[in-house]
Amino acid sequence: MNYKMIGRFISQILAVEAVFLLPPTMLALLERDFGALHAFLITLAIALALSAGLRLLCRGAKRGFYALEGLFCVGIGWVAMGLVGCLPFCLSGQIPRFIDAFFEIVSGFTTTGASIVPEVERLTRSILYWRSFSHWIGGMGVLVFLLAIVPAGSSGFTMHLMRAESPGPNVGKLVPKMRQTAKILYFMYVFLTVLDFLFLIAGKMSVFDAICTAFGTAGTGGFGVRNDSIAGYSPYLQNVCTVFMLLFGVNFSCYYLIFLRQLRSVFEDEELRLYFGLVVGSTLLIVWNLRGFYSTLGETVRHAAFQVASIITTTGFATTDFDMWPSLSKTILLCLMLIGACAGSTGGGIKCARALLLFKSLRRNIRRTMQPQKVQVVRINERVIDEQIVDNTNSYLAAYVIIMIVSFILISRDGFSTGTNISAVFACFNNIGPGLEQVGPACNYSMYGDFSKLVLIFDMLAGRLEIFPILALFSRGTWISR
Amino acid sequence: MNYKMIGRFISQILAVEAVFLLPPTMLALLERDFGALHAFLITLAIALALSAGLRLLCRGAKRGFYALEGLFCVGIGWVAMGLVGCLPFCLSGQIPRFIDAFFEIVSGFTTTGASIVPEVERLTRSILYWRSFSHWIGGMGVLVFLLAIVPAGSSGFTMHLMRAESPGPNVGKLVPKMRQTAKILYFMYVFLTVLDFLFLIAGKMSVFDAICTAFGTAGTGGFGVRNDSIAGYSPYLQNVCTVFMLLFGVNFSCYYLIFLRQLRSVFEDEELRLYFGLVVGSTLLIVWNLRGFYSTLGETVRHAAFQVASIITTTGFATTDFDMWPSLSKTILLCLMLIGACAGSTGGGIKCARALLLFKSLRRNIRRTMQPQKVQVVRINERVIDEQIVDNTNSYLAAYVIIMIVSFILISRDGFSTGTNISAVFACFNNIGPGLEQVGPACNYSMYGDFSKLVLIFDMLAGRLEIFPILALFSRGTWISR
Repeated sequence: MNYKMIGRFISQILAVEAVFLLPPTMLALLERDFGALHAFLITLAIALALSAGLRLLCRGAKRGFYALEGLFCVGIGWVAMGLVGCLPFCLSGQIPRFIDAFFEIVSGFTTTGASIVPEVERLTRSILYWRSFSHWIGGMGVLVFLLAIVPAGSSGFTMHLMRAESPGPNVGKLVPKMRQTAKILYFMYVFLTVLDFLFLIAGKMSVFDAICTAFGTAGTGGFGVRNDSIAGYSPYLQNVCTVFMLLFGVNFSCYYLIFLRQLRSVFEDEELRLYFGLVVGSTLLIVWNLRGFYSTLGETVRHAAFQVASIITTTGFATTDFDMWPSLSKTILLCLMLIGACAGSTGGGIKCARALLLFKSLRRNIRRTMQPQKVQVVRINERVIDEQIVDNTNSYLAAYVIIMIVSFILISRDGFSTGTNISAVFACFNNIGPGLEQVGPACNYSMYGDFSKLVLIFDMLAGRLEIFPILALFSRGTWISR
Repeated sequence: MNYKMIGRFISQILAVEAVFLLPPTMLALLERDFGALHAFLITLAIALALSAGLRLLCRGAKRGFYALEGLFCVGIGWVAMGLVGCLPFCLSGQIPRFIDAFFEIVSGFTTTGASIVPEVERLTRSILYWRSFSHWIGGMGVLVFLLAIVPAGSSGFTMHLMRAESPGPNVGKLVPKMRQTAKILYFMYVFLTVLDFLFLIAGKMSVFDAICTAFGTAGTGGFGVRNDSIAGYSPYLQNVCTVFMLLFGVNFSCYYLIFLRQLRSVFEDEELRLYFGLVVGSTLLIVWNLRGFYSTLGETVRHAAFQVASIITTTGFATTDFDMWPSLSKTILLCLMLIGACAGSTGGGIKCARALLLFKSLRRNIRRTMQPQKVQVVRINERVIDEQIVDNTNSYLAAYVIIMIVSFILISRDGFSTGTNISAVFACFNNIGPGLEQVGPACNYSMYGDFSKLVLIFDMLAGRLEIFPILALFSRGTWISR
């Protein structure tokens, strides 16, 4: 293991985090919120001190870097960001217990949006800002950000990092020029966020609410600034959120293609079709299932579309308590949690591209069982998919199922209902936020014990980083020096 | 498609079913239960008439036979057996609705044990006998029985059939001499059933109860003859059931190896170790979780071991209403449902061998991600597993998850709770029987609508036949003649 290189890398991450801590610090100063200001300043000092210390300790790092180290870096980098990032919450006394604060900030950085705060309106604005800002930071990946601004390291290093952090199986196709790509991605991310903000402002939302809501939407996170999430805003604002959640769930490479005017390949993209097919299909089914539940059809469509968009993109905003909906609607939402958004978006879940691959490889294997003499391949967008990728995707599903089952067993020790426990694991692992029953949109995660919270924190990180970097942290091989 | 060959095959199955219908017919005659006798005689006549008709229609069948046709045969054979086998229930008026009767007999043949009968003690003894006997018939597979007694067909035919019907991924290793093997398997199956019966008789169980209970145990089915399943019997009888359920969940090739005195390879069998490890581990965890729930430790251990054995072997007997247990215990049971018994046993579920393969292939892929330069293989019992099998197992998991999700969505239309619906799908697809909440051990499946019952029937068949034969029935390719 190239520990010095890893140390330098963590030092860079903490320096970036310190920069990100500046806006909420300013806000606390402006609002004369001295409790929070104090907390932010201490956190800033700790982040900078750790960063400088690590930089000093890890001088003269060699350049060699392996895939394993890339995974390890990403895993430990995210944990370090969480450990420092939660300090403002505890130091200000607004989320006094460390484990709760850690849960909250990991939920933020991983864009989950699961909260242990019963009443968010009691938090001060600078803390609320940091909470929502963490979604935006985590959405695109702070490491991609690093790539975009920091002088280039060895190309193997950056490639391993980007592979490990970017959601979805097919980042590869965009990355001949890694730094260039990272810049374009960040530009589009910022552009869409600003656009969202402007549309919200146009609907007479206050500037502060609009900023935080735009952060939550862009990162597909879901932390709101009001106790009732988005339910209190006007129908127009809710619809704006629906549209932007869906936009942030699209593979960003599609925007890149639009930018290059290759509209045809966007329209013919199988993943995009599946994604929008699922959105429209689920919305229609839920509207049908909810007939008579709301007073008008328009209201039903609005709530159905909002919740579908919120769940499939793994955002987790809510305009209504969908735990009160009939079973079929709840079941559809539970299944959408599992599938998630497109690969290469800021959303979580298994990803539409993987679902497509799993389904196609299953169909291939059925065909192979029936006609063993024929050679059968898996195709997506008319290209033959490499068997190694098919194999990895199947393996991903196995890891997914195993982690889900183990987490489910571990948190059930706290004695809540089966529906609560299953949906809590689903909602955290897939980075959604609210689940059903006692972790439904009208409730929160504070009732779970500390051990269960640690399990769910692990799930959130494993879900955001797509399992392998976090498993690498726990693997024996990682800790034996080579 | 070689329709004539398939027709002949169905004709043979129905003839065998007619033979199996004789004992309950006799019993109805002996007990002077003329309603049931009438029903059994009509069913016998229908089975024989259909069998003869098909034989006549399908004279002069060619011998050529493909894998697809093997799958198709098995799928349609089981459906045909169910359609004829449910007639005694409806014709006698004891389960008046056809769909309910069909659900009950499919649940029997697939050794599920999910019932729509609220009070089994109101059924007459000949009907109860047929209900339990169906477990025993379905346990080893009526087709394996056919192989053992019917003059040999082409060897490709028998191999495709046996592959399609026998549970688990690794039947292959036992089958150089197919008919010989089928006979040995049947001998061991009969021997263990008789042994179980004798132990039950020794505990002063009535002969009728002992026969039916032995059938239910041998097939790992779970239909009882009393409303409270096994709870009303003495602790000795409950422990006998525990031991025999576990024995029937062992890969039968292990008994074959014991028979050949290769004890060492039995002890070192990784699947067997995993199976007993899971049984002991889960029992201990549940005993720990249940402390204070029952009055003595002995009672706790008895109930815990019984329920663990009943669920992991997918039998579904109950000595207590485990839906009242604390969440951790219920969650462990839910997870055991998923894993199931050993491959090559009469039990259902994913099977320990597959779970082992999935876990090992996952570990291999993690290693490959971390050290891409090394060649990594999957080993079980120190033998390298063919990549094709690993691939198929991963694909099996994908099919399993997809079918589970679709079923879950379809039955949730009836509006029961998430826990009820999930556990109903789990319990039917894995051939267990009772689930949790409204389909818990104290309840039954009668409240589901007809459509949901059909979905669950599909799940039971797909689970018992390990998905592919039943999917073949619905595949487009099957119905286009080649």
